[in-house]
Amino acid sequence: MEQKRPLILITNDDGLGARGLEHLTRIAVTLGDVVVVAPATPQSGKSSAITVNTPLYIEEHPAIDGAQVFTVSGTPVDCVKLAMYAVLDRRPDLILSGINHGSNAAVNNIYSGTMGATMEGCILGIPSIGYSLLSHSPNADFDPLTPFVKDITAKVIREGLPEGICLNVNFPKECTPLGMKVVRAAKSRWTEEYATYATPHGTPFYWLTGKLHNEQPDDPATDEYWLKRQYGTIVPIRPDQTAVDEIGNIENLMSREE
Amino acid sequence: MEQKRPLILITNDDGLGARGLEHLTRIAVTLGDVVVVAPATPQSGKSSAITVNTPLYIEEHPAIDGAQVFTVSGTPVDCVKLAMYAVLDRRPDLILSGINHGSNAAVNNIYSGTMGATMEGCILGIPSIGYSLLSHSPNADFDPLTPFVKDITAKVIREGLPEGICLNVNFPKECTPLGMKVVRAAKSRWTEEYATYATPHGTPFYWLTGKLHNEQPDDPATDEYWLKRQYGTIVPIRPDQTAVDEIGNIENLMSREE
Repeated sequence: MEQKRPLILITNDDGLGARGLEHLTRIAVTLGDVVVVAPATPQSGKSSAITVNTPLYIEEHPAIDGAQVFTVSGTPVDCVKLAMYAVLDRRPDLILSGINHGSNAAVNNIYSGTMGATMEGCILGIPSIGYSLLSHSPNADFDPLTPFVKDITAKVIREGLPEGICLNVNFPKECTPLGMKVVRAAKSRWTEEYATYATPHGTPFYWLTGKLHNEQPDDPATDEYWLKRQYGTIVPIRPDQTAVDEIGNIENLMSREE
Repeated sequence: MEQKRPLILITNDDGLGARGLEHLTRIAVTLGDVVVVAPATPQSGKSSAITVNTPLYIEEHPAIDGAQVFTVSGTPVDCVKLAMYAVLDRRPDLILSGINHGSNAAVNNIYSGTMGATMEGCILGIPSIGYSLLSHSPNADFDPLTPFVKDITAKVIREGLPEGICLNVNFPKECTPLGMKVVRAAKSRWTEEYATYATPHGTPFYWLTGKLHNEQPDDPATDEYWLKRQYGTIVPIRPDQTAVDEIGNIENLMSREE
């Protein structure tokens, strides 16, 4: 009896046409049946945003290595939701997002459209992995990542993931990773965040920029530490942000009288 | 010597003009100096999205009860970042977001622009609270919430919050809350997610809708349980989504050979 190949849904936040998406698709077709449902336009920094006040359209595009390809006129999370609702004919066994052009390590997880889609898959109960390369170049070389992406993806297909957990995988740029480390996100935030301009009429306007300030640069338990040392990193992510361990503290705080 | 009043930054995701924002502002001015920096347009469902590919503008509006009021042409997170960078003359002691018209309980935390702004404040190291009322009506009655919002806000001004933790506060609709419960978000997801249409030319399009499926309706440790029983809920939220407790499991999974 023929064993059914796993169905893999792929999305990203850079949109169709991004080299990282095509690269991930060409790896995934060696592991299962693949359907790509990607944003029609770039969606970097869209986090888990959903489109609530406008309608969404689906468009079909030429296949990549036998994988069907569609775009959705919305966010990465819209792509996952609408793929499940209107594109796929069965529930996917795996959702992959990426390979993102740019880092989603450290605090970037929360702003990332790549990880928004990954967490959406996890919320829907499907094993989900987000892949990112620490290079914003549209011509970034994804070849050195291939064996790592293939190995991690194959293991998750075979073993699944713990309930309520997805993976945020980042790769160092311009090198072959020395290996992979399972770690936590470095505690960090963005600083000096805007470039300031003025229109010809003198009205100021602002463009997001800034530097990542890592509060734990010497901590080998964090992703940033290893990415700087040419390792790839795997961070287990829990979309449910409830701090269960702080419920007692907050109860105490709220019961205090002045 | 005069004691400095705390500086409170207020934002939301429904935009300036929302009744909940004005209500929260009128409460906050009794507790400190208030500056409102709200989105210029509705930003529901924007999560922690940031605007990376277009510039942002700031506009000043008439004061509310002595509070300065500005809009930013972006998302709730943009409002917090740009307020810190270009509007406030000192670091705020507290960030409030809301009062949102609609629930941010259960899984909604991850899609919520209200909570995106709240988590951004937390990432920046500022005690932050998101407030939501379980009614989408633009004319919702916020008066019954006043003593609760005032009490929680005053306590957080006085006591602060644990590092890396912010609060997601939700209130039941059309009633005076019977009390407040500190709980976790109910495990849940959205189902039956789109209404389907066709253009006059026969092209299908899709509009987000759906129902919240609560997997734990009978669990008194969850927010949905108490909101259905006329209680308000306080969920401690940790923006850092690393599942530290799963690092060992994922290490094992990755080290297994076929």
